[in-house]
Amino acid sequence: MTDLLDRLRAIVGAPNVLTEGDLTAYEQDWRKRDRGKALAVVRPGSARQVADVVKACAAAGTSLVPQGGNTGLAVGSTPDASGKQVVLSLQRMNAVREIDGANMTVTVEAGCVLQSLQEAAEKAGYLFPLSLAAEGSCTIGGNLATNAGGTQVVRYGNTRDLCLGLEVVTPQGEIWEGTTGLRKDNTGYDLRDLMIGSEGTLGIITAATMKLYPMPAAQLTAWAAVPSLNHAVTLLGLAHQYLGAGLTGFEVMGQFALSLVVKHFPQLRVPFAGDASARASAPGRPEPDAAPSGGSEPDTVGSVGATPWCVLLENSDSESEDHARTRFEALLEKAFEDGCVTDAVVAENLAQAHQLWHIRESIPLAQAEEGLNIKHDISIAVSRIPAFVSSTDALLRSEIPGVRLVNFGHLGDGNLHYNVQAPADGDAKAFLRDEEARVNGLVYDAVEQFGGSFSAEHGIGALKVDKLEKHKSPVALGMMRAIKRGLDPQNILNPGRVLRAETFSS
Amino acid sequence: MTDLLDRLRAIVGAPNVLTEGDLTAYEQDWRKRDRGKALAVVRPGSARQVADVVKACAAAGTSLVPQGGNTGLAVGSTPDASGKQVVLSLQRMNAVREIDGANMTVTVEAGCVLQSLQEAAEKAGYLFPLSLAAEGSCTIGGNLATNAGGTQVVRYGNTRDLCLGLEVVTPQGEIWEGTTGLRKDNTGYDLRDLMIGSEGTLGIITAATMKLYPMPAAQLTAWAAVPSLNHAVTLLGLAHQYLGAGLTGFEVMGQFALSLVVKHFPQLRVPFAGDASARASAPGRPEPDAAPSGGSEPDTVGSVGATPWCVLLENSDSESEDHARTRFEALLEKAFEDGCVTDAVVAENLAQAHQLWHIRESIPLAQAEEGLNIKHDISIAVSRIPAFVSSTDALLRSEIPGVRLVNFGHLGDGNLHYNVQAPADGDAKAFLRDEEARVNGLVYDAVEQFGGSFSAEHGIGALKVDKLEKHKSPVALGMMRAIKRGLDPQNILNPGRVLRAETFSS
Repeated sequence: MTDLLDRLRAIVGAPNVLTEGDLTAYEQDWRKRDRGKALAVVRPGSARQVADVVKACAAAGTSLVPQGGNTGLAVGSTPDASGKQVVLSLQRMNAVREIDGANMTVTVEAGCVLQSLQEAAEKAGYLFPLSLAAEGSCTIGGNLATNAGGTQVVRYGNTRDLCLGLEVVTPQGEIWEGTTGLRKDNTGYDLRDLMIGSEGTLGIITAATMKLYPMPAAQLTAWAAVPSLNHAVTLLGLAHQYLGAGLTGFEVMGQFALSLVVKHFPQLRVPFAGDASARASAPGRPEPDAAPSGGSEPDTVGSVGATPWCVLLENSDSESEDHARTRFEALLEKAFEDGCVTDAVVAENLAQAHQLWHIRESIPLAQAEEGLNIKHDISIAVSRIPAFVSSTDALLRSEIPGVRLVNFGHLGDGNLHYNVQAPADGDAKAFLRDEEARVNGLVYDAVEQFGGSFSAEHGIGALKVDKLEKHKSPVALGMMRAIKRGLDPQNILNPGRVLRAETFSS
Repeated sequence: MTDLLDRLRAIVGAPNVLTEGDLTAYEQDWRKRDRGKALAVVRPGSARQVADVVKACAAAGTSLVPQGGNTGLAVGSTPDASGKQVVLSLQRMNAVREIDGANMTVTVEAGCVLQSLQEAAEKAGYLFPLSLAAEGSCTIGGNLATNAGGTQVVRYGNTRDLCLGLEVVTPQGEIWEGTTGLRKDNTGYDLRDLMIGSEGTLGIITAATMKLYPMPAAQLTAWAAVPSLNHAVTLLGLAHQYLGAGLTGFEVMGQFALSLVVKHFPQLRVPFAGDASARASAPGRPEPDAAPSGGSEPDTVGSVGATPWCVLLENSDSESEDHARTRFEALLEKAFEDGCVTDAVVAENLAQAHQLWHIRESIPLAQAEEGLNIKHDISIAVSRIPAFVSSTDALLRSEIPGVRLVNFGHLGDGNLHYNVQAPADGDAKAFLRDEEARVNGLVYDAVEQFGGSFSAEHGIGALKVDKLEKHKSPVALGMMRAIKRGLDPQNILNPGRVLRAETFSS
């Protein structure tokens, strides 16, 4: 092992091989569910160095755990407890290599923090639309390795859909130079998409060419109360029809989720929550004459209790704010007429829009304030979500009397954060300890019955390997194992993540 | 072999195992470059039958050639000359299984003709945007197997981007049921995209779930004269900015390409071609007061000779025709001001729009009228296309005096049909015979120097296996071979297509 460490120091320089001091940031996962022990943390500065590190490790039979910002939610980028794995941190490779305006692309190294990439794009006059909670710390390489989602998927797709080409170091320590900026290239198998979402088990992404978009001329946000999830689905269809590709956000939030925000962050002023005076000061509530009421006063009952679901909509317009507002009003007027919206506000300015998004983003925090809970990141065909929620809610309530269900998520993508909170008077810690496995079983079985996915955005990592074995098609699992065996026969890259090592070793 | 044929008859029924009569439609490729001989053409009616056919063939050591509409341009779906391969035609599996409006998806069997799928979507009130010349005969399974492009890629992407899930029969005769309608699913490797574009060498696509889009409220087409390819690229940037996702088509056509249309189809009235009287009757030419002339009369010299490049733009609007027209006018006004457009017409109605598209689509036919030529389907980063064209034009003109260059294509996607026509006074047949290999070498080497692809839309098939070996990264080729070996170790599916068999057999 000393031999290997010496070789690694020779490749990347001694200061970039960390073996001592506090390595928590590299060895512990983001949600602090797991803590491993690395042989060393190696921080290469180029694809060439990454390749040489991989070769050295492969020769020594030492496996590697590629790591970006280490913000993943499925324990995919931290070492196991053996003290024998090398953590390969891409953080030093953080350059924006090139912005090609005419081609509307940016080529960037894997370790670039997402927010830095967003800012570099904006400075050049373009939008890089990937946006998610961890954007200040996560890296684009990690976003690609996990095919991250976020809040703009309804328009721009997942990270996969934003990528045109990759530079990858293979498990054999070869460099595949694939950072083309091509929008069409039918020369052989789609290795790019195979690498994206493979969580560092098939290759190490060292750089990528990503799509840029024109900056919208205006962005407007609205908040609508809807009588049911079915009505929210109808509203989504209308929004697609009225806003076309202008629809860049469509988030749904259930009554209980919002009531937690009202309870724990009273300063946030949730629209249509609380009493009449609170409503009057809700951000961006339109004046009565501007309210698209569809000919009759909208339902004005002002409690969360009477607003079973709320929807946050975002409209990004290539023309102007006036035009964006006109389109929003046309949409909401139609939605009032059809009875799928009972009340709505359109943010008057950016600050109000941020407030509305802030409410949506505060739901996980409010949940944490309320106590420990069981989280699920699931997807179902949009059309089947109402039936899934009503039948699974009923099932859980009958199995665990008093259980509280926190439903919210990216309805535009069929992606629900279907979270389960202990009964109001219960011990949350005991609930988690005693019920997590059973709740997961009930929820994931229901997801499978509805043809959904038990991991929409977050991936598999080490955390959900058993879920993958239980819920994935055996035929698909067989193909995955054959591919892993073919590309990484030594199982040198991120072993035990996604696929259990014993199930495919040759 | 009689045993195998009996087994195949037992599986799909005797009338669906063709061994006699005229099998040209199955054995000859679309462009009639190759004619093979099949042991039999088998026409299964279900995924189960496909799986059983694959098992029977695998047991007999007989390889299969999956086939859809057999309209491919790279000889990827016809049998070799051995008389030992089974052609597996998916044409009987042509059902539209389900249209899910709320989820905006359609699930369809592989053998469904593209145009039938477009029509089924339209009947349900949605747009299925894939559109290409062969749409009346090609099948969605073939589109997926080759990742077909077409004219709407600038907005909707290639076939890959329209697909959410697949049903696939593996080389072992297992069925992977992957037709989920999920927009987010991060449970393991991206097998869907690996199958898409693999040209039937890794699995047989039997059904797919595809995205639908809202029908645009209006679609407008414009035709603009631009002084150079650089100006066309600038216009593309403006179009992205002004039209946003409304930009659904951006085609460029060179002077010589259009002059061939003028010559061979004089009835077509190419805008800005010919004399003043011809111009006056050009479709959709705006009245002088409506012309966005940017303060000065546009260049009105009315010959193709003075209009080096023309661009066809399409704007699909989710609001109204009036709005689409206003946006087009704003774009063209700015383009006139910036000097990147010298003349423009906007079609007044659908018939005029069709006429403009018809001119664009007539270029290949006009080329054929002019005589045999050498075709290339290449892609380059949009920003580098002007430099590529000017340097490669110059190279070819110096190597082959008098050679004529037919440039046109989907500039919005960086995809050029860069075709080479014999000198005007030359013998086209002799030109093709004597010069094709040299011209291909010059063009593909130039494409490689510019970081482009030698097959943007059409794939590899049997026709370009040698080009793939020459121009593809050896690292990428190595990964492709490992994947093929892993998934199809017996090399039972479409052997010799994409990858030469000898280069990966285990």
